[in-house]
Amino acid sequence: MSRAKERCDSLGEGRFTDMPGLLFRPYLGPAHKAAVEQLTAWMEEAGMSVRLDPSGSLIGRYEGTGMKTLLIGSHIDSVKDAGRYDGPLGIMLGIDCVAALHQVGRRLPFAIEVVAFGDEEGSRFPSAMLCSRAMAGQIDDKSLEIDGLEGALNDWGLDRASFLNAKRDPADLVGYIEAHIEQGPALEAEGLALGIVTGIAAQKRYSVRFVGIAGHAGTNSMALRKDALPAAAEAILKIEEIGRAGPPDMVATVGRMEVLPGAPNVVPGDVRFSVDVRAGTAEPRDKAAEEIERALAEIAERRGLGLAVRLLHDLPPAPCDPAMMERLERAVTAIGQPVHRLVSGAGHDAMAFADMTPTAMLFLRCEGGISHNPLERVFPADVDLARDALLAFLDILSEEYDG
Amino acid sequence: MSRAKERCDSLGEGRFTDMPGLLFRPYLGPAHKAAVEQLTAWMEEAGMSVRLDPSGSLIGRYEGTGMKTLLIGSHIDSVKDAGRYDGPLGIMLGIDCVAALHQVGRRLPFAIEVVAFGDEEGSRFPSAMLCSRAMAGQIDDKSLEIDGLEGALNDWGLDRASFLNAKRDPADLVGYIEAHIEQGPALEAEGLALGIVTGIAAQKRYSVRFVGIAGHAGTNSMALRKDALPAAAEAILKIEEIGRAGPPDMVATVGRMEVLPGAPNVVPGDVRFSVDVRAGTAEPRDKAAEEIERALAEIAERRGLGLAVRLLHDLPPAPCDPAMMERLERAVTAIGQPVHRLVSGAGHDAMAFADMTPTAMLFLRCEGGISHNPLERVFPADVDLARDALLAFLDILSEEYDG
Repeated sequence: MSRAKERCDSLGEGRFTDMPGLLFRPYLGPAHKAAVEQLTAWMEEAGMSVRLDPSGSLIGRYEGTGMKTLLIGSHIDSVKDAGRYDGPLGIMLGIDCVAALHQVGRRLPFAIEVVAFGDEEGSRFPSAMLCSRAMAGQIDDKSLEIDGLEGALNDWGLDRASFLNAKRDPADLVGYIEAHIEQGPALEAEGLALGIVTGIAAQKRYSVRFVGIAGHAGTNSMALRKDALPAAAEAILKIEEIGRAGPPDMVATVGRMEVLPGAPNVVPGDVRFSVDVRAGTAEPRDKAAEEIERALAEIAERRGLGLAVRLLHDLPPAPCDPAMMERLERAVTAIGQPVHRLVSGAGHDAMAFADMTPTAMLFLRCEGGISHNPLERVFPADVDLARDALLAFLDILSEEYDG
Repeated sequence: MSRAKERCDSLGEGRFTDMPGLLFRPYLGPAHKAAVEQLTAWMEEAGMSVRLDPSGSLIGRYEGTGMKTLLIGSHIDSVKDAGRYDGPLGIMLGIDCVAALHQVGRRLPFAIEVVAFGDEEGSRFPSAMLCSRAMAGQIDDKSLEIDGLEGALNDWGLDRASFLNAKRDPADLVGYIEAHIEQGPALEAEGLALGIVTGIAAQKRYSVRFVGIAGHAGTNSMALRKDALPAAAEAILKIEEIGRAGPPDMVATVGRMEVLPGAPNVVPGDVRFSVDVRAGTAEPRDKAAEEIERALAEIAERRGLGLAVRLLHDLPPAPCDPAMMERLERAVTAIGQPVHRLVSGAGHDAMAFADMTPTAMLFLRCEGGISHNPLERVFPADVDLARDALLAFLDILSEEYDG
């Protein structure tokens, strides 16, 4: 079993990647095209009618007895040197759920649309989640002024002028649900196959720069030098301390760092680094971000250095819908699995829908928390449990559905 | 006045640099050739007979009444985007001293050779001080197995087979003296024009690597992540602390650093950095280096990270000759300047001679301690004081000279 996993594996090579030897499936490239053709066959086999929306998302529709639609989505594009499950697994699980209904000729009181978003990772153009944000009506013409996008759309018989027509009317929707690998180690650490996502973390991202004076490492005494690097070192430790002092769903990370001029015999005069702070809710995140900003200023002042802090992103939290979450919990309980709630630190297509329609997310354990890496692994038994949980969720939602 | 400074300025542009708009005079390049031609003219004008040695050093000889020779040297090559005084100033001061003797027809009991070394910076080939080390007999055939060196020598009518013939016999030498800009802020901080170098610092250089586990910055909790960057941050602060706790001539620097994979949303799994420790004598340097090695191990152990420490250089201190230093101090006193001793944290051609012949160095204040930078500045009055101090030194050495 775990056909969903096998199907992800089969999309990990050959014509389904645009780089020999590693998996890279950027939006609107040849590998994306090949994947869309394969998904179309699988969706049709599962009893769906299939169409491409104006943003390049592939949609398989399984009619219900009523007119409204539940979306089951995730993305088919990938980062460079990707794993096989980040995105595709959620689509394959959606197809498998529909296949199970189709096999017994069962119709739910609502239609199901399985959606394979074309762009989530933003690895081709400098903008992520173009397709899900278009479907949720979160972008405008200006967001589409991206070099090369027009031509890439035209290659697929799409055009930029129609892109925003991908927007759906919330009145037609029952909700949005997405299954995705956790991309982190929390479920594995708890020994759990599945987790209920309570929301997608609030995120702030900064670029920080300490400016001192570069000089010869041999001739600038410790007392007289203005070294920008120990200031950054203090900041990094303070950021770690603040992150650790927060709630368990808080993370604070310095991931990128440049030390200039960058020679072993030169005192660094210029150090630049990123700061990324996330938490399940805005309040602790904002408190941590303020503490970090204060610490940076104190360090620069005490060491007599220049400081520039720039806020790059300020993404609000995208909470999941309480009623949908509660149904998903009952579904997980129904298949005999413990309920574990967690915040998603990473962004997902589900973020785009949180304000539009009741949204839920189911996380699957991934080995070692490793993702965006060919070493990404899922356990076949977990994939089967996820499918069973989604089917149980569809049962519960159908029973309680009042049109 | 301060003709030496003006001559350095005139070599800072036009045909004396191999890059338009910035000063770059690599070993055996066209700009080096042009500088050698100009220096030849100035040396001949000062009464010297001029020759190129087998390593490409230009030597101007002013005969004395005895056969032995005092070398006054420095280098004519430069780093990329260099200042105008690092190297050339010492040569110009040597020429000015000889010019002063020549003008009054005075001969000393020893000959003077003013040497313009062709390679000190190592900015063309991956090996520094090739010319002074050849003259001091510190290199062998193997050190000359450098890609492109043979061809570069041939372009100048030189050949690799003869390179080692640049070696001088110590029995023919009285000593070696070099004037050089400090390349650091110590003299300026003391309000002094000149300093007596007691020796060139002992230096140890390491490459260090902390290895953790890279992961998504949003999904790897603070408790479970293995972040290599805060470990490096702790190390940087410890290295600064150890450097500060040492004698005033100790410096400890992290100048180069790479954070991998280096994305704002990825926990760093691999951080590599350089450690450079110097002190006037080996003992405090070794003590500091040991403390740093212990601290690195403790940090890696406590944080559960991999650690690789590699010793790249271990250069012994190159002390100046006490008798020569003492004469230079009397010379500085004779021109009415206070005596200030300091260690050279940077390497110089003088290092090569310390084991071969009595060696001394005179430092000149440079503005802001800035060097290896077009903003490198010297004060004209300081340059004149340095020339006067060198002339006084020649007087004292001549008086005490016993063949």
